[in-house]
Order: sequence, then C-alpha cells, then structure tokens
Amino acid sequence: MTASADSVAFSDPVYREAVVDLLAAVGYGEVSAFERLAEDATLAPTLEDKVALGLFASQQIEKVASICARLTELGADPFTAMDSFRDGFESFHAHTAPSDWWEGLVKAYVGDGLANDFYREIAAFLDPQTRDLVLTSLEDTGHAEFAVDRVRAGIAADPKLAGRLALWGRRLMGEALTEAQRVAANRDALSALLAGGVDMPGLDLAAIGRMFARLTERHVERMTGLGLAH
Amino acid sequence: MTASADSVAFSDPVYREAVVDLLAAVGYGEVSAFERLAEDATLAPTLEDKVALGLFASQQIEKVASICARLTELGADPFTAMDSFRDGFESFHAHTAPSDWWEGLVKAYVGDGLANDFYREIAAFLDPQTRDLVLTSLEDTGHAEFAVDRVRAGIAADPKLAGRLALWGRRLMGEALTEAQRVAANRDALSALLAGGVDMPGLDLAAIGRMFARLTERHVERMTGLGLAH
Repeated sequence: MTASADSVAFSDPVYREAVVDLLAAVGYGEVSAFERLAEDATLAPTLEDKVALGLFASQQIEKVASICARLTELGADPFTAMDSFRDGFESFHAHTAPSDWWEGLVKAYVGDGLANDFYREIAAFLDPQTRDLVLTSLEDTGHAEFAVDRVRAGIAADPKLAGRLALWGRRLMGEALTEAQRVAANRDALSALLAGGVDMPGLDLAAIGRMFARLTERHVERMTGLGLAH
Repeated sequence: MTASADSVAFSDPVYREAVVDLLAAVGYGEVSAFERLAEDATLAPTLEDKVALGLFASQQIEKVASICARLTELGADPFTAMDSFRDGFESFHAHTAPSDWWEGLVKAYVGDGLANDFYREIAAFLDPQTRDLVLTSLEDTGHAEFAVDRVRAGIAADPKLAGRLALWGRRLMGEALTEAQRVAANRDALSALLAGGVDMPGLDLAAIGRMFARLTERHVERMTGLGLAH
C-alpha cells in the first residue's frame, strides 16, 4: 500500500475488511478453478485436450501467489482468509458436479465468466492497487475460446447435446446466484461494500440492481456464444 | 536439429525412433505427473499444502510444450507419440494408487526421483540437443524438498507411519521396474538403444547393469532421506 489514495480508502476498517474478503474469494476461486479444471482434464477425449485443460488449470493456480502477497500486505493470513470461502465454493461444486466432459466445459466457461464479470464490476469501485490486482487475476488465458470451440463442435456432431447443455447452463446460473447470496449474507463488510454502506461513490442499491441485470445479460450472451438458447 | 553432430546421430533411423520414444515417454510422464499431483492436491491437509502441490503439478504440465515442439521437429505427431505410453503409465498408477496424503507424497518423490535418475543416465549418451532438452525437463522445482519436509514431520508426529511408508516405497520400486521392463520390451528401437544395438559409444549391457545398480542405490538414498529404512 503506497499511494495516498489507497491510504485514504484503507483508513476505513470496514473497507479493508471488505477488500480482504474480496481478494480471499478471488484467491480461493483460483484454487478451486485449478482443482475443477484438473479434474475435467481427466475426462478429456484426447491427450491434446487433456494437456490444454492442464495448462488452463496451471494458469489458475499460478495467479494465487499475487493474491496471497497482497493479503499479507493488508495484515491478513492469506490461507486462513481464503479458506474461509471453502464452504461456499465446495457447496456450489457439490451441487454442480459435471457428469461428463461437455458439462465440465460449460461449467468452467459459464462459471468463470460469471465470476469474472462480477469481480470486474466490483473492481471498478475499488482503490487503484486492488483494482489492478483483481483485473490481472481475471485475464482470460484462452480458456473461453477453447470451451466455445469444443462445445460448438460437440453440438455440431450431436445436436441433441444442445438441449441438455442449455438446461445445465440455466442450472449453473441459479446455483451460482444462490451460493453468492449466501456467502455475501455471512460477510458484513462485503455486504456493506456491495450495498453502499462503505463510502464508495457510485455504488448504491440501484447500481447493484443494474449490475445484476448486466451480469444476467452477459450470461445470456455466453450461452448464445456456445450455440445454446438461454 | 541444427548442429552437424545431431545430423550424424539422426542419420540412423533407429536412433531417431529411439529418441522419439524417449521424449514421448518423458512427455507422457509429465502429463501423468500433473494428473497425479493434482489428485494428491485434493488430499492436502491444509490449503497451503494444496496450493503447493497445485504449483508442482502446474510446473509438470508446462514442461510438455518443449517436448511436443521437439517431437514435431523430428517428424513425429507429438500427441500420438506420447499417447502410445499411456498404457504403461496407467498400469503403473493403477497398481500404485495412494490410499492417503502420505502415500501420495512418497509416491511422487520416489517415482519422480527414479524416473529422473533413469532419464539422466540415458541422456548422457544422447546427442547434445536431446540431452539438453531431457535435462531441462528433469529440473527439480522444489517438490523433492517439500515431500521430504512433510514426510519427516509426519513420521515425527506419528512414528508408526514409518513402517507402512517403508513397505510402500519398496512396492513402488518393484512396480516401477516391472512396468519399465514391460514398456521397453515392446519398443524395439528403445531396447536397442538401451542394449547398445544403436551405435552409442559406452552404452553396452555391462554399462546398463551398472546403471541399474546406481538407480537402486539412489532409491535407497531417497528412502533414507525420508527417514525410512529401505
């Protein structure tokens, strides 16, 4: 924390706690994405796809270091902070275990896309250093393109797949929203940040409402990109 | 393939085939190490250990690219070449599935150590470019130190663990030798290379015998390093 703008933001202990929560959620999300992609890799139909998934998995776990470093700077124990999000993520994954390669691809694409959109929206309201760190963590590494390419080819080869995956996409969106609300409800500082209780110009309940509308819109765009009706 | 020394070596088609087999085995071994370490990560007792294992896994999968590039240069399809080693690796893993975190740690340490020693021995007899590629692929990334540290601490906390893991180490060595012999027996060029049938000064059956003696010695050293009797 060097810039004076940061010092002003972090002089509010609720802001600091909310940022610790947010970074910890991003960090646990990266660990969780690594585990999920590595598991999906075991289902890959070819060795080439297996290696591709393995590389996407490794890009996720390698992002954790910079999150840990920043959490430490903010005075938090990074692993304790991240681990406190374990239940939320594991509950989401327990409710959305993919039954095959296709469901795994759609889940990673839809789930990461939604999470990234959400963090990107929030990042816009944060101090510059936290914002940059969050945005760097969200850089797409080619995984979205890979998923779209494979799912579209799969549907072209077996059109019946489209109906099943469209239902699956809707279910993922519902489970993600349920879980996100449950996690936020247990985090006073994070909820305060999201509800405008922290002094963040421009972020109030109306803005939150518009944000969720945008998230839903982008989810529909992603489903359409996969060749699936919402 | 640029140096003239390489061109001489690769003018022997059996040598080329043996090098393709060797690199393909190293490459599949990296994919397999990624999968195994990612699976071990799910058993980690703490989030910190999980992230550490995830990073070791990712270092493995990231080495595959340079192996693929060289296989392509040698005129082989890298994924077909690597995939031909699938049965050998999967059979080894099916016979040595770790039942817990400790067995996973010992397996990765002992198995990778043995494979690395073997490849390092063979590399000494190869053309410079192949040798450099193999040696780079074998660089330890801190995983051995991590495994030794964790296993020694585990035994200190629960001395009964030592007997079980010592037996486990012996079994791993036996299974690895069985599988390696079976794989080599199905690869004429690789067997010829190992038995001196390819023109490689200094590598004959007596040298192979001494090599296996050294591999066994180093295995014993590794087990001792873990605090385990062989």
